[in-house]
Amino acid sequence: MKTMGLSRLSLVNPKHFPDPQAVARAADADDILEQAQVCSSLDEALAGTVQVYALSARHRNLGPPALPAREAATDILSRAGEGEVALLFGNETAGLSNAEVQRCQRTVFIPANPDYSSLNLASAVQLLCYELRLAAFDGHPPVVTRAVPFASPPAAHEDVERFYLHLERVMVSSGFLDPQRPRRLLPKLRRLFGRAELERDEINILRGLLDAVERKTSPGGAPCDTPGEGLGSAAK
Amino acid sequence: MKTMGLSRLSLVNPKHFPDPQAVARAADADDILEQAQVCSSLDEALAGTVQVYALSARHRNLGPPALPAREAATDILSRAGEGEVALLFGNETAGLSNAEVQRCQRTVFIPANPDYSSLNLASAVQLLCYELRLAAFDGHPPVVTRAVPFASPPAAHEDVERFYLHLERVMVSSGFLDPQRPRRLLPKLRRLFGRAELERDEINILRGLLDAVERKTSPGGAPCDTPGEGLGSAAK
Repeated sequence: MKTMGLSRLSLVNPKHFPDPQAVARAADADDILEQAQVCSSLDEALAGTVQVYALSARHRNLGPPALPAREAATDILSRAGEGEVALLFGNETAGLSNAEVQRCQRTVFIPANPDYSSLNLASAVQLLCYELRLAAFDGHPPVVTRAVPFASPPAAHEDVERFYLHLERVMVSSGFLDPQRPRRLLPKLRRLFGRAELERDEINILRGLLDAVERKTSPGGAPCDTPGEGLGSAAK
Repeated sequence: MKTMGLSRLSLVNPKHFPDPQAVARAADADDILEQAQVCSSLDEALAGTVQVYALSARHRNLGPPALPAREAATDILSRAGEGEVALLFGNETAGLSNAEVQRCQRTVFIPANPDYSSLNLASAVQLLCYELRLAAFDGHPPVVTRAVPFASPPAAHEDVERFYLHLERVMVSSGFLDPQRPRRLLPKLRRLFGRAELERDEINILRGLLDAVERKTSPGGAPCDTPGEGLGSAAK
């Protein structure tokens, strides 16, 4: 990371941290380790991000759209103008689970030998950071404006996750989703809304609709984790 | 090397070879180690080459011309048509001596953070091999399936429009949308789903959910323009 000018590292549930072996291997990059943020969940690590890119050598069923590393670097830089973006890497042995990948809006792959395509974690991180540096300094500054009429700022990761929870609740209470037999409905909807790259205003509209539906189906008082947020904000 | 499709490795005076630790670390790339040529001098390793590129982070007085990795990859490929070319790397601790670099026709550097520019040997090898692979397939990119697995065919225009009608009906019946004061909610949702480029399967899921919500809110029999379509299709 440091060789390419990146500095912010978040670790989710590291087995050992801080760890003398890690410090020794970091050589003069131990400042990155010292400043690393340790999180107890992926959602905590991703809080505040507007776009997350998951590095994955494998194709994922229902995974978000996949970009090769070089194209991804340009895309990442263009999104970085809108808010915090994150690159998500799995650990050396297990990589990322499907559930983790589905929390991201893009997957990134490194074009490799199809007969032997899995790079070491360190190599993959190095490559991505290298592509980011070159994309950032290539003399062709990325176009930052992605203005689309009526666009509101991108939704933050935690707001998108709350929307999914709310959607799931309505899917269950309406009888559409049987938790005993979920039929991959939720991953499929994650894939859809992930492609759309939800904006803050859209989240408010969608949650306002879910609120209204809940009130209608249980008139005694709808369960709602953020009372009044949805409809009110959507009116803006 | 193997992840990027390269296979020929020459080792000059290795301290330990073969070495069980190297074999273990090579994972499924141990065939590269088995076929490695062991040489007793650099000249022996370079015999028969028409061009040698030395990787070096440091600027060398009197060294050969320096190219950044990406440019070097194109140059290397163009020379490869003329005969054997080699990439020369120093060992992890000492790198290459000036005398060794001067046996080469080019040096290659990896654009990096000027405050921390020295990559690990493995990272440098990985990066160069990656650039070579991309340069080799530039213009003739290896077939990469960009399709997101489980994508169903794109939804037909009329199905999308029926979905919007259905959505609007639920928005009104739930009290979320006041037809007298629509506040551009529908155009905003059209914009969202338009960006996502809905697939047929997704339309079925969304309409199945709308059906279920309608059944719940008016148990006497939901109005439905295409009875049974939504939920049934989503179950496929």
